[in-house]
Amino acid sequence: MSHNRQWVLRTRPVGEIGPECLELVEGPIPTAGPGEVVVRTLYLSLDPTNRIWMSDMDQYLPPVQVGEVMRGGGIGQVVATGSDRFPVGALVNTGLGGWQDYVLAHQDTLSHLPPLPGVPLTAFMSVLGATGLTAWFGMVDICKPEAGETVVVSAAAGAVGSVAAQLAKRRGARVIGIAGGKDKCRWLAEDLKLDGVIDYKSQDVGTELDRLCPNGIDCNFENVGGAIMNDVINRMNNFGRVALCGMISTYNGEGPASGLDDFARILMRRLTIKGFIIIDYLPRAGEAFAELAPLVLSGELQWKAHVVDGLENAAEAVKLLFSGAHDGKLMVKVGEVV
Amino acid sequence: MSHNRQWVLRTRPVGEIGPECLELVEGPIPTAGPGEVVVRTLYLSLDPTNRIWMSDMDQYLPPVQVGEVMRGGGIGQVVATGSDRFPVGALVNTGLGGWQDYVLAHQDTLSHLPPLPGVPLTAFMSVLGATGLTAWFGMVDICKPEAGETVVVSAAAGAVGSVAAQLAKRRGARVIGIAGGKDKCRWLAEDLKLDGVIDYKSQDVGTELDRLCPNGIDCNFENVGGAIMNDVINRMNNFGRVALCGMISTYNGEGPASGLDDFARILMRRLTIKGFIIIDYLPRAGEAFAELAPLVLSGELQWKAHVVDGLENAAEAVKLLFSGAHDGKLMVKVGEVV
Repeated sequence: MSHNRQWVLRTRPVGEIGPECLELVEGPIPTAGPGEVVVRTLYLSLDPTNRIWMSDMDQYLPPVQVGEVMRGGGIGQVVATGSDRFPVGALVNTGLGGWQDYVLAHQDTLSHLPPLPGVPLTAFMSVLGATGLTAWFGMVDICKPEAGETVVVSAAAGAVGSVAAQLAKRRGARVIGIAGGKDKCRWLAEDLKLDGVIDYKSQDVGTELDRLCPNGIDCNFENVGGAIMNDVINRMNNFGRVALCGMISTYNGEGPASGLDDFARILMRRLTIKGFIIIDYLPRAGEAFAELAPLVLSGELQWKAHVVDGLENAAEAVKLLFSGAHDGKLMVKVGEVV
Repeated sequence: MSHNRQWVLRTRPVGEIGPECLELVEGPIPTAGPGEVVVRTLYLSLDPTNRIWMSDMDQYLPPVQVGEVMRGGGIGQVVATGSDRFPVGALVNTGLGGWQDYVLAHQDTLSHLPPLPGVPLTAFMSVLGATGLTAWFGMVDICKPEAGETVVVSAAAGAVGSVAAQLAKRRGARVIGIAGGKDKCRWLAEDLKLDGVIDYKSQDVGTELDRLCPNGIDCNFENVGGAIMNDVINRMNNFGRVALCGMISTYNGEGPASGLDDFARILMRRLTIKGFIIIDYLPRAGEAFAELAPLVLSGELQWKAHVVDGLENAAEAVKLLFSGAHDGKLMVKVGEVV
């Protein structure tokens, strides 16, 4: 490849991401100065937070500016280097290297992929990457489920939710998953062995929660926000914990999302609601990795990757996150290891 | 006194507490069986939560039932006893003994007032009672302000808020108090030496918060709910903590109170919102007492009691909490120590 393809933000989406929002342009392949590394992207991560970064809503990082390369996580292989720490050929995590074939990064922003023989690269994009860490810290550090407690996970078939649900099961909790569609619900029930599953596309969430959680809800790992979150929190027990990980149901909306119809429940039930973003936990990633890596190696933890081929398809593929038409961690395969 | 006057709930309030809600009736003075104690009430505590208990909204204790004696905290003196632990004459905390001259209680529900020479009984109804403990746990255990952080306390001139604000000041925080009326605001600024004061009755809270909190808000000790809470939380910094202690602005309303206009801020700013009720912390009361008691004895901690004389005036007096026309911890003096 003689040039660097880059997806550039052209206009902020209003509602769904439209074809006018992102443009694929071509530029030169960057060169590495001292301390810098050029990484050829192998996989690009597509995540709900991409939609946040495209907007100018109040958010946890600066929005991507119009005209800039779209931000995104990924892994790649070093092709040119000005760093002793990252030789040509090394496999690295590029942090938020962006939607492009080649990432120019300072060595301090890169990290080597851990050597785990037999683990596919897609694992480092999912269960051993940001989504797995998100699941671990939200469930283990914030929800802290105890044996016998009832845990509800929304978007439970998603890359984060499915790992979070399994971590709660391992701690002896009763886990109820909410997902959209028969196939996802079947996977949660039959393969992940969740204690209850709700298909929000065909069932009334509140009615099913009443049926499946006769003793109320102790923990909520929340990925969706909006009406589903409201239905869950309205059924939470005293001292319940909510790990607020995402509110994907609201990201395509305009203006702020109000969230709860009965805020006083937080007081009356002495709930704790904690918003979190995985970048804050990266210094503690080793704690999560210590549990997740052995489970991935042994095959005890189930996970799925939904791989879309070709950087040119990224802008279309990201929309799958909002329709739920993907199955597993959504990512784009941009290049092959050489 | 040859009979026991009792305030009985006759009908649940709709909106403000009306004269039809509570009736003062007379009955016999109870007698103490084995393990039981009859306590003559000295002081009855009036609190915003009385309004919650009168309603049948979802709440943290069973609502008071129509026909039952109104629930309320208090202290009193033992006048008849079937308990070795509580002799006649002992001064005790009756827990939630109720709005009545005489409380019949099992010995396991009573506790002796701590021996603190020179401390008036009204202190045990306020700064060394439930409101002081509430302030301590909300501020010290939940908000955890650090030196230099900005803390906002709503209802800051109230029995809970004023102690919470002083505890934050002692930890080196910048403390902004929100209160209603010139006199309360002057007390907060001049006597409590808060770093900023907002009179919500004559100033725009949002505008004043912008002016007084140029670096945003790190902690919110929330007593009011509604629009004031919304104005505060919308200005909170990353990793901010909210101790949700009360939502008095909503208690006279019908139906649930939605609370925040931008729930996603909890996620984007990684806020923690924790509802709490002091009864959950009573087993840990000693931790709070260890800081509060010396400060009360030395006079370093300022507090005010608003004492209304006569049990017969309780139903009228409780309404002061909602108009804000009281000044300090509201209580009814029911009897004298003998």
